[in-house]
Amino acid sequence: MKQNRSQTVGVIEPSVAKFDEPLSLESGGMLDRYHLIYETYGQLNQQASNAVLICHALSSDHHAAGFHSSDEKSLGWWDVMIGPGKPIDTDRFYVVCCNNLGGCSGSSGPSSLNPATNKPYGPDFPIVTVNDWVTAQALLSDRLGIDTWAAVVGGSLGGMQVLEWSTRYPDRIKHAVVIAAAARLSAQNIGFNDVARQAIRTDPEFHKGDYYSHDTIPRRGLRVARMMGHITYLSEDAMAHKFGRNLRHKETFDYEFDPEFEVESYLRHQGDQFVNRFDANTYLLMTKALDYFDPAAKYDGNLARALASANADFFVVSFTSDWRFTPERSHEIVRALQTNNLNVSYSEIEAHHGHDSFLLDIPEYMTVMRAYMNRVAAQVTTHA
Amino acid sequence: MKQNRSQTVGVIEPSVAKFDEPLSLESGGMLDRYHLIYETYGQLNQQASNAVLICHALSSDHHAAGFHSSDEKSLGWWDVMIGPGKPIDTDRFYVVCCNNLGGCSGSSGPSSLNPATNKPYGPDFPIVTVNDWVTAQALLSDRLGIDTWAAVVGGSLGGMQVLEWSTRYPDRIKHAVVIAAAARLSAQNIGFNDVARQAIRTDPEFHKGDYYSHDTIPRRGLRVARMMGHITYLSEDAMAHKFGRNLRHKETFDYEFDPEFEVESYLRHQGDQFVNRFDANTYLLMTKALDYFDPAAKYDGNLARALASANADFFVVSFTSDWRFTPERSHEIVRALQTNNLNVSYSEIEAHHGHDSFLLDIPEYMTVMRAYMNRVAAQVTTHA
Repeated sequence: MKQNRSQTVGVIEPSVAKFDEPLSLESGGMLDRYHLIYETYGQLNQQASNAVLICHALSSDHHAAGFHSSDEKSLGWWDVMIGPGKPIDTDRFYVVCCNNLGGCSGSSGPSSLNPATNKPYGPDFPIVTVNDWVTAQALLSDRLGIDTWAAVVGGSLGGMQVLEWSTRYPDRIKHAVVIAAAARLSAQNIGFNDVARQAIRTDPEFHKGDYYSHDTIPRRGLRVARMMGHITYLSEDAMAHKFGRNLRHKETFDYEFDPEFEVESYLRHQGDQFVNRFDANTYLLMTKALDYFDPAAKYDGNLARALASANADFFVVSFTSDWRFTPERSHEIVRALQTNNLNVSYSEIEAHHGHDSFLLDIPEYMTVMRAYMNRVAAQVTTHA
Repeated sequence: MKQNRSQTVGVIEPSVAKFDEPLSLESGGMLDRYHLIYETYGQLNQQASNAVLICHALSSDHHAAGFHSSDEKSLGWWDVMIGPGKPIDTDRFYVVCCNNLGGCSGSSGPSSLNPATNKPYGPDFPIVTVNDWVTAQALLSDRLGIDTWAAVVGGSLGGMQVLEWSTRYPDRIKHAVVIAAAARLSAQNIGFNDVARQAIRTDPEFHKGDYYSHDTIPRRGLRVARMMGHITYLSEDAMAHKFGRNLRHKETFDYEFDPEFEVESYLRHQGDQFVNRFDANTYLLMTKALDYFDPAAKYDGNLARALASANADFFVVSFTSDWRFTPERSHEIVRALQTNNLNVSYSEIEAHHGHDSFLLDIPEYMTVMRAYMNRVAAQVTTHA
């Protein structure tokens, strides 16, 4: 994670956009008022034609690049991708990333204050969907004076938002970059999500989602959910290579329930860290948004018809060892886009890190992203 | 599950073998006294040469075939495989299956009474390993007057016991049938096991394993562990085929946390059923036994050297869609056996049900098992 500060966007101050108009949600719910926290990197050009929107995945937020303080640990989650001279080059693009509705990093969500009660929303925060997030992002775009995005970019759940952007607002997005994504979750994906939710919701400290007022958190459930999730983000090969059957600080078994294998202490550590930074209700909402997303459902499962309104050029990226959203899931998207006679580039990256590859500094991945974003930049210049 | 009773071994009465000699365990622990519950099907011939030992997997027990009562639900877990005219033909073989030490179905385990205290062992039951199980099974063999097994057969964790038998007691086993197994767990396998253990052990009802004396069980943790485990037993394809994204009793989403998808209610049901029949401490012990098994560890990871003492003929079976123990894990075993110039047959069954395939009535699988067991039977006859 060590970065030369001169290669980053530096220390970033987030902004907050407040919205006082009610927002109707896909679930039938409503938010009377809400706010979105966001960051921007680089300069918006005069024509407002060089803006790139970053959509975040399940457990990340608006802090995609740079630092929040002098602490090196405050580096943004996609700093390998975004910054001066990086694939999403902040010397050329004006990059925007917001924490989605329902999040826990500063946007309106279950842990933020419900203006109607002045207490945390808790379980009263409505179910939000990919559709709602894109609606809110479009309202934020208006606020920022961005009529058309040069590109909308996202990995995993972020890639689903990119797909939604491309069909909901086809005239507001020139390029759609869909990374390590799927057009809908499989039964196995939904199964893992539901196990995570059950771990959280059956934790006695969950208090039906109102744990804030009990001054506690469902730590044990969220920890187990994250441990399991983490396994699904890594490939079997990556785990074999990183941990194998290595023991932790010893040569032979002690035959006990304390961690004996390195992989056990690693996963427990990941779980422990996560409960200190992430809200359980947000985890529930994010997994539900994943489950619900299925643009083809309205079209008898025909993804090509679901994507028929899209107008952008597409770049689709998958990773060979991703078993959460396999390359085949990206092929489905590519075929559906091709059926609509859209411009589609596709890159399948040989990578051993599983689903998490989309977050990592993998040379071949960086190269193709850089090349595609060069193409995006060339079109910005033409229009300038 | 509907079976014609004439094709089963009928209603079976288990037996219990009590052992008053102490048993030293691989963990360094000791059991002063213990008992094993077991069932037998078919008749032992005069030469005691037609005996087949069945080794069970993580969550099953001694009740492999037939019924315990007139209740159809009491059918044994491997009745498709064992019975009159079935691949392991009880008209020809004398079949034995015991609940392993640490189990919860009648053998000495955490939920059985510690003779020293007259209370359940709970956390005082020692860690047991595949090695210990095979030791106990050998003592049971002595008790039953079986010097040599015509075959020892097991799937998954049961297959590990077969491997252990083949090297520990090479002169007591003529055929080793190793199904859907691996010679050691991968980091991913261990990771899933540890998530399951953490779900159980962090349940407030766990009471450090002494929940019996608190008149409770760690229901929530065991339920989550089983839900997750169940996903790993099924293939992604099987889940897609069985559930897809089908909704439960409705056409559209209700946007709620009650189960909406069929796969959610299926997994929750599986978890609920399991906590009513299985002991959490046994689940912990069984997963630890899986983690520890690694015969090659003593030989710098060289499995061929670890299996050098084996003398049996081998039949190794894997299933194409098993992602818990992939066919490649069986190939490793086959190569190691071939390196030792042993007779090895290998069958890779095209099956869509994942790891659970080994329990199912899959025609091609039944055919190869029948053929191999015919070979075993032919040698029994020769020796008679």
